[in-house]
Amino acid sequence: MTPTDSAAARPETTEPELAEPHLRAVLDTAGLAVEYVRAQDNTLFWLDEDGTEIAVTDFAGGYGSVLLGHNRPEIVERARELLASGTPVHAQFSSHPYANRLAAELNRIVGRELDTDEPYFAIFGNSGAEAVEAAIKHAEMDRGMRLAALREELARHTASVRAAVAAGEAKVTSRALAGAGLDATAPGGDFETLAAELERHNAELFARPPLFLSLEGGFHGKLAASVQLTHNEGYRAPFKALAAQARFVPRERPEALKEIWAEERGTLRDVRVFEGRVEVTEREFPAFCAFLVEPIQGEGGIHVLSEEFAAEIQRFCASIGCPVIVDEIQSGMGRTGALLASAQIGLRGDYYTLAKTLGGGIAKTSVMLVRQAWYREEFEIVHSSTFAKDSFSCHIALKVLELLEADGGAAYRRAAERGDALRRTLESVAADFPGVVKEVRGRGLMLGVEFHDQSGSASPALREAAAGGLFGYVLAGHLLHRHAIRTFPTASALNTLRFEPSLLLSDAEIARLDGGLRDVCAIMRDAAGERLAAGRAG
Amino acid sequence: MTPTDSAAARPETTEPELAEPHLRAVLDTAGLAVEYVRAQDNTLFWLDEDGTEIAVTDFAGGYGSVLLGHNRPEIVERARELLASGTPVHAQFSSHPYANRLAAELNRIVGRELDTDEPYFAIFGNSGAEAVEAAIKHAEMDRGMRLAALREELARHTASVRAAVAAGEAKVTSRALAGAGLDATAPGGDFETLAAELERHNAELFARPPLFLSLEGGFHGKLAASVQLTHNEGYRAPFKALAAQARFVPRERPEALKEIWAEERGTLRDVRVFEGRVEVTEREFPAFCAFLVEPIQGEGGIHVLSEEFAAEIQRFCASIGCPVIVDEIQSGMGRTGALLASAQIGLRGDYYTLAKTLGGGIAKTSVMLVRQAWYREEFEIVHSSTFAKDSFSCHIALKVLELLEADGGAAYRRAAERGDALRRTLESVAADFPGVVKEVRGRGLMLGVEFHDQSGSASPALREAAAGGLFGYVLAGHLLHRHAIRTFPTASALNTLRFEPSLLLSDAEIARLDGGLRDVCAIMRDAAGERLAAGRAG
Repeated sequence: MTPTDSAAARPETTEPELAEPHLRAVLDTAGLAVEYVRAQDNTLFWLDEDGTEIAVTDFAGGYGSVLLGHNRPEIVERARELLASGTPVHAQFSSHPYANRLAAELNRIVGRELDTDEPYFAIFGNSGAEAVEAAIKHAEMDRGMRLAALREELARHTASVRAAVAAGEAKVTSRALAGAGLDATAPGGDFETLAAELERHNAELFARPPLFLSLEGGFHGKLAASVQLTHNEGYRAPFKALAAQARFVPRERPEALKEIWAEERGTLRDVRVFEGRVEVTEREFPAFCAFLVEPIQGEGGIHVLSEEFAAEIQRFCASIGCPVIVDEIQSGMGRTGALLASAQIGLRGDYYTLAKTLGGGIAKTSVMLVRQAWYREEFEIVHSSTFAKDSFSCHIALKVLELLEADGGAAYRRAAERGDALRRTLESVAADFPGVVKEVRGRGLMLGVEFHDQSGSASPALREAAAGGLFGYVLAGHLLHRHAIRTFPTASALNTLRFEPSLLLSDAEIARLDGGLRDVCAIMRDAAGERLAAGRAG
Repeated sequence: MTPTDSAAARPETTEPELAEPHLRAVLDTAGLAVEYVRAQDNTLFWLDEDGTEIAVTDFAGGYGSVLLGHNRPEIVERARELLASGTPVHAQFSSHPYANRLAAELNRIVGRELDTDEPYFAIFGNSGAEAVEAAIKHAEMDRGMRLAALREELARHTASVRAAVAAGEAKVTSRALAGAGLDATAPGGDFETLAAELERHNAELFARPPLFLSLEGGFHGKLAASVQLTHNEGYRAPFKALAAQARFVPRERPEALKEIWAEERGTLRDVRVFEGRVEVTEREFPAFCAFLVEPIQGEGGIHVLSEEFAAEIQRFCASIGCPVIVDEIQSGMGRTGALLASAQIGLRGDYYTLAKTLGGGIAKTSVMLVRQAWYREEFEIVHSSTFAKDSFSCHIALKVLELLEADGGAAYRRAAERGDALRRTLESVAADFPGVVKEVRGRGLMLGVEFHDQSGSASPALREAAAGGLFGYVLAGHLLHRHAIRTFPTASALNTLRFEPSLLLSDAEIARLDGGLRDVCAIMRDAAGERLAAGRAG
């Protein structure tokens, strides 16, 4: 018996429940609060009430964190080597060549996938959400610096025009007054009146709070600022007053970009002298800090961004000078057959966020990459974390990249091939249960199956599960207890089950999922809710 | 040669610098960008340009993360056991008995130190800053729920008074109108006019953005919201528009609490019927989300909160119903001779944040504890993290607590005793260099030495270092290269060196620090900046 087993087997009843007892109770109603004691490859082992280990095939996959499998031997071995070598985990404010090597290796792969030589600078964090927070901070720092430069330029122009007017080299025309929104009929207007009005107009824009763009269904983390870019209102609304806001763009509706732009854009007013006349010209105000987008929405319900909409977003952001933050925390790191799922649809980010599998299922690490053209080196002085950029995590992440890149990228090909195999099975189930399965979505090993709403089912159990907001969890509980399959709905799409297994996924594991899904589909088709495993009894 | 050594020894020049090259260049100017390759106990080993390992005594100590020493053998062994046992690192949304056990153990110790039975609920995170973000979110969720309850209660009162007025059971008096700030001379006022005015007045208060209290010199992390509670303007100002604001209270100035309260408080207006008359009464508006306080400010320059000021804060917060968040991320986990440095000065938190040594120098973990009386179980449903509450980190943290608690708390006693020994040395240096050392501050193994400002030094090198904002870093570079001592100034107090070694600190290590400090003190006394090691040349 390993120390973990021994510890886990200790009866829990001797201790008060103080680590999220309410969440546990909710999971318990769907039979999901089992106690996992061991994990290997695609399998998690839980202890039943007799202390017997029960193997479960894991299609949840740490929500994208274990593409290479739970406790992948090469990664565990690397971790053991690092521990044995006395790796200097805590050596902040020194040279971190491992971090630099990791950044270089990420750049090599990103450059290959994007076909670019332009480097991306790397800021490391400890979780996906921390990478998003860093991206938010960087984007706002950059916007602030651009605003400051704009404000200075406008002030310089005003000063220079003021001097020209004082010297009798230029005069204020009614056209200039009209351009500032002043009464244009007053002849020979006063420059100071004009300047004050321009200043007032511009100051209003400069005082605007930062605003982000994000997609409906988007998920970008749950820290205080990142959660405001996460669409699910349940996560976001209680904390709305804490941080900067986002406008949420409906998926696959390019015209919405123009509508939101029309609502939010602002025009600064600049002043110059042209042929002896004071001229008021317009300058676009940078209304948005950044546009955050996932190439495949995970928590939102496995929605793949189309190439067409990605191209629209890219064009739109380029036209208004808004950086694109591509959030690859769940989709990236090889899951779809490439390091960047976005590269597969032709989307190029000005920023990327990566996490989950970057830590190999063992380390906690994340990175934000910022393209040289957008990078502000000042950020390095004001942002840091005691735990980030550490030797242990960086070396583990380097091992992960080594495993992904080995044999000419065999891991990427394997992820794509296994994804295709899994998808064929999901589609075959869908074809056989057309009244039950609404859609199969996703790419590579990031797939989802959406079921038709069961709130009108003839089965009271199914109706209640659908009405109570626990529908997908009840299905998950049944799959766990009857078919030894671990999967979950997405929190924002309760009728969608999510499948993100490791690339070790075998045909036998796919076959087991096939059986399990056919069972739950038959239960829905037959309105036979009484056949569902329910709660702990299951 | 270990794998780490081999990797670290690879020449860096073959790779572009993409992981914070600007920060590295800044560190390099003070000779601090050395490359550490190994860490054990209190020693970090760096590689010089010939590839020779050079041992350095680490007084930086991961800014509080390695109280038990770098790569503490028992913790490394536990990590190896966990890896060998295939611990289920990624098993989110299941039962996590290890997290529950860790929460229970933390409660046992906290309960002992505070002499209370009231439990604290535990929300886990991956870094100290994440724990602060969670505390910010929880405090705002709680405030929102209290506001919603208040708003409902006021609406119920209005409805009930309206009914009483309609039934002729109560009438509006001029006193009620005056209470609402309306013209009290109008006899027999209209209830709807009164109700509309009360509603308008209250709506203004309910619309106020969240506001926190924090101390001048306070440091609570650098994520998007937590950084706004961190006093250092350099870290905070570029991101000010991103998140909720704090009022910063000057240290040790209790009267400032009342001044800020007078400026920020708000009074809601309630309405009731009393003896047939409509009466307007006042209700306090919860103006502050929470008061964040470190018992010892680390980044702020090692300032110990006095018992008196702690008591004032406690009284003030109790009187206005504002929760106290005690940030023990740097001071806690045994560093001052107790799990909670705040308990030693009689301060009781409604929330605590713990991190750093909680992860034993290897794992990345943090926890936010919320006292039952303030806890909102709804938080468990809306807040989570893929990496948090994992088996690996929880088991490591349990081992840390076991090591702290062993032998009747020998580790706490050792930290206090070694802290006293270190402090005696610092004070002896201070006594011998009264014109150079301004103050020795701190408690246990969290100590600081502040030097007098050298911007008026007769030495150009010292004057320039002081003027360039790199003074403490130049001293640190000298101590590193001439005395094999690693320490840093605090970013908000550049004339203060910080000492946070592990409890393994030996008398010989203290003696070496003594020599090093006497050397830098003599350089300052003699205005002999030319004796300083400078940059890489050092």
